[in-house]
Amino acid sequence: MASRLVIATNNAGKLREIRALLQPLEILSPADLDLNLEVEETGDTFIENARLKATAFAQASGLVALADDSGLEVDALEGAPGVLSARYGTPDLNDQGRCQLLLHNLKEHTDLVKRTARFRCAMVATAADGRSCHSEGACDGLIASAPAGDGGFGYDPVFYLPQFQQTMAQVDAKVKNKISHRSQALNRIIPLLLQTFAELRS
Amino acid sequence: MASRLVIATNNAGKLREIRALLQPLEILSPADLDLNLEVEETGDTFIENARLKATAFAQASGLVALADDSGLEVDALEGAPGVLSARYGTPDLNDQGRCQLLLHNLKEHTDLVKRTARFRCAMVATAADGRSCHSEGACDGLIASAPAGDGGFGYDPVFYLPQFQQTMAQVDAKVKNKISHRSQALNRIIPLLLQTFAELRS
Repeated sequence: MASRLVIATNNAGKLREIRALLQPLEILSPADLDLNLEVEETGDTFIENARLKATAFAQASGLVALADDSGLEVDALEGAPGVLSARYGTPDLNDQGRCQLLLHNLKEHTDLVKRTARFRCAMVATAADGRSCHSEGACDGLIASAPAGDGGFGYDPVFYLPQFQQTMAQVDAKVKNKISHRSQALNRIIPLLLQTFAELRS
Repeated sequence: MASRLVIATNNAGKLREIRALLQPLEILSPADLDLNLEVEETGDTFIENARLKATAFAQASGLVALADDSGLEVDALEGAPGVLSARYGTPDLNDQGRCQLLLHNLKEHTDLVKRTARFRCAMVATAADGRSCHSEGACDGLIASAPAGDGGFGYDPVFYLPQFQQTMAQVDAKVKNKISHRSQALNRIIPLLLQTFAELRS
């Protein structure tokens, strides 16, 4: 069920304008457009990689494309896996394998409170004509000693949130949607999207 | 037709999260809820009046309510009609009558470039439990010598935008949606809405 918001006005003109301004975007996946595109993530930063992906998908689709590049920075590993989060270790590893590798690489750091880390997310939206906007978000936590929870994806099962005493894979989706690096970056890019791409309101 | 945005990712987890975060709000009018509420606008500022309306509708509906209070400030009239914009002159006046009254009151100011004015908009969103957020937007222009155009409402026909050489009632709706005081306030409140009211994402 969609969430409900009541517009507190008896003025038909205001109501019409606010409805038009808040009209939903149709969110498409690459599959919805039969787009089969592998973008090489050669950037040194999340923003650069997000830009590479947004640009490639915008040019291939002719639509405004929104790309996310995100990853985990672990302080005891000098920021690794960072931009390589999705390609940590050997190519045969899946999400679970990469979590295990991370725990292995932290095995000498036994004090949980020193296993500080943050999820980072960069978002870039681009149109085929080059107009662009971007945002960033971050979420602090600790690397747990073992995976827990089956929500989310990626490193969520080993990312412990002290304030909730749960991993990112254990917290309710509502909580994740409020605090995650991705939701913060998205909250920040939405107004920029609406300002940069007038076509999203027509 | 809804505007289309492609999410530039082949990662199913990211796609699922971004879709959930961008899910459309169901926008309700007071009529949709059979709410018949007249709120007295006794505040001295746009924000105060928006807060009065948002609070009344949130308490009556139990939902998050978004209120807009907006008006026109004309420098040669020391900021009038301001918060009284919708009640300028006598109660029998309609939008057209109020535009005529404004032109009449400016008849001694014949130099268009000195008839500077701005539309202001304050938005307040409130839940019945008191959580709240707000934003403001403004749009500069000049008061035309005669009404022109039939788009929009209120003072739009006499609000001249030099950069477009048209009144706010003449410009394309896309242009209005990009520059108006209301669209700016709305752009600014959307991320606050999403942060303040987690229920809008569930």
